[in-house]
Amino acid sequence: MTEKNHIVRAFDEDLMRLSAEIAEMGAMAESMVADAVSALSRMDAKLAQRVIATDARLDFLQRDIEERAILIIVKRQPMALDLREVVGCMRISADLERVGDLAKNIAKRVVAISTGLGANFGAKKVIIGLEHLSSIALEQLKNVLDAHTQRDAASASRVRERDDEIDALYTSLFRELLTYMMEDPRNITFCTHLLFCAKNLERVGDHATNIAETVHYVVTGQQMVDERPKGDTTAAIAAP
Amino acid sequence: MTEKNHIVRAFDEDLMRLSAEIAEMGAMAESMVADAVSALSRMDAKLAQRVIATDARLDFLQRDIEERAILIIVKRQPMALDLREVVGCMRISADLERVGDLAKNIAKRVVAISTGLGANFGAKKVIIGLEHLSSIALEQLKNVLDAHTQRDAASASRVRERDDEIDALYTSLFRELLTYMMEDPRNITFCTHLLFCAKNLERVGDHATNIAETVHYVVTGQQMVDERPKGDTTAAIAAP
Repeated sequence: MTEKNHIVRAFDEDLMRLSAEIAEMGAMAESMVADAVSALSRMDAKLAQRVIATDARLDFLQRDIEERAILIIVKRQPMALDLREVVGCMRISADLERVGDLAKNIAKRVVAISTGLGANFGAKKVIIGLEHLSSIALEQLKNVLDAHTQRDAASASRVRERDDEIDALYTSLFRELLTYMMEDPRNITFCTHLLFCAKNLERVGDHATNIAETVHYVVTGQQMVDERPKGDTTAAIAAP
Repeated sequence: MTEKNHIVRAFDEDLMRLSAEIAEMGAMAESMVADAVSALSRMDAKLAQRVIATDARLDFLQRDIEERAILIIVKRQPMALDLREVVGCMRISADLERVGDLAKNIAKRVVAISTGLGANFGAKKVIIGLEHLSSIALEQLKNVLDAHTQRDAASASRVRERDDEIDALYTSLFRELLTYMMEDPRNITFCTHLLFCAKNLERVGDHATNIAETVHYVVTGQQMVDERPKGDTTAAIAAP
């Protein structure tokens, strides 16, 4: 075996290990979001506590991927595609870490809400809306991580385009929650928590979009330049 | 001049350029937050639009710092402190980019609110509270960027410890806003926007804390391990 081949194989092994950690982070972040929303829907404080506890592992993995990636760059001096692969892993791990934070924030609210906050309004309907929002966000996350595994820029672009759907659903939930708050002041605290949960899920979608942009960059070497329709359109909601 | 000295000087020049970009990003992020809150306080949609427009430059600088940092690592193969300096710049630029996003989000809400949303409640008092929150967050940001410039881990630790103050103020504003919402349903939309503005400012404080952790890591080579009191305690607010 030549020296050159030896170096190439060592880099590939490094990259496989990084990719395996990304896969672990992805699976963990997805579970955290799904569990946080299940906990919300069933008012299950124990499940919410488990989500909160899991976050430390995700944070650890992110730091580990970052350190490992930097060491690979120092040791192997990768160029072009190889370098983008490593940088891509660093960026994706940062997004997945943030997804975990968002899930943890939802879980913390569940712990608060489940201790007897009144749900004397169409809570079930809103929570179904949140579940729907979460299922699209999770699908986006899954699709973009698959796109990363397969280095599929076209599939990543589709994820990015679909973010509009999440934004539209979030905006409609936002309006609905405001309406419930106006109908009965006793709903306000509960609905405020749900507003922030919805916002967190919308942000999960944004991170899927960020990852899509990273996958595009890794595969093509180009940054996506056109301004994408950015997340939170509720910032523009005036009086109802 | 020896080859070794030549390489050292080239690295120092690279690092100085990175640091200059960090300083530019820091100044820009601070202005964006200050301007977004001024725009809110004066209901100045034009100033808000300027904040929104500035964000693209901040995003560009972040990508530029990241690319430049990676190239430095590839070319110079820095070790130990030198490597941490470069990685530190990457991390800090990511936090500053997020601070810009948060300022932009506040500015977008100002554009919505300023188009005639009724402020038929103690809006002035809440906005003074938001200004206070913003002034502490900006002070934290300024102090931590100074700590980075001076490689002062002790000063960075003080920033991290002071984050409690922001959290306490945010929690009190959160409760106050809920009260106004309950008093009069006509306040709900307006107060909801202010809730998200307050949350955004609290998040600016979190990013100052992240930067403090990065500065500590750069200077000492150690990660701060103890779990810091994390941001959003309002997640635990139950019925008032």
